[in-house]
Amino acid sequence: MKITNLDKEKKIRVDMEGAKDAYKQVPVSAHDGAPSFSFRVFTVEPGGHTAFHTHPFEHVNYIISGHGALVTEGGKELPVSEGDFALILPNEAHQYRNKAEDHPLVLICAVPKEYE
Amino acid sequence: MKITNLDKEKKIRVDMEGAKDAYKQVPVSAHDGAPSFSFRVFTVEPGGHTAFHTHPFEHVNYIISGHGALVTEGGKELPVSEGDFALILPNEAHQYRNKAEDHPLVLICAVPKEYE
Repeated sequence: MKITNLDKEKKIRVDMEGAKDAYKQVPVSAHDGAPSFSFRVFTVEPGGHTAFHTHPFEHVNYIISGHGALVTEGGKELPVSEGDFALILPNEAHQYRNKAEDHPLVLICAVPKEYE
Repeated sequence: MKITNLDKEKKIRVDMEGAKDAYKQVPVSAHDGAPSFSFRVFTVEPGGHTAFHTHPFEHVNYIISGHGALVTEGGKELPVSEGDFALILPNEAHQYRNKAEDHPLVLICAVPKEYE
């Protein structure tokens, strides 16, 4: 059993090409013994975004705070805000953009542990 | 792709033996096409709790709001509050208890989709 919070977890800048001002933490990881999936948290600063990309596994997301857009195929922007859940299926193109001017977009991004 | 929030998701009372004043929603489910794991949300009213139990799969939890206790083997109570994450490993006994007098304990409980 592990109980933690974001103040206790190391935060690293996302260096993936196409990402801007995004940071990653992994409060529940394969290293903690998670048997099948991990909880990562991304913090996207105002004006920042994750990479627009696809991959052969899903994301399950929960917006902890802030608001922004979930960008999908063709650049379509779907609004998301605190309290929203999202399921991004394998091979669906996606990107999270922070649309606020003064506060971060913070979201849980759960993935199969092999891809954490 | 699915985007939703708790206002849009059906809420049912948990009728498992040992649970009291607990309600369940499943914003991201196998029925939505989730390939490997589901996000359930439990709302535990003041004085309420989930069942004290074990099972052969894990929980990954995030406390959306409120505060309470994660009860473990031997009845030990670990405090949890808004913003905490928890990993409960397969076969670890556990229960969530709402310790607040006037507001619900709301938490994400992610599980392999077969057990949602």
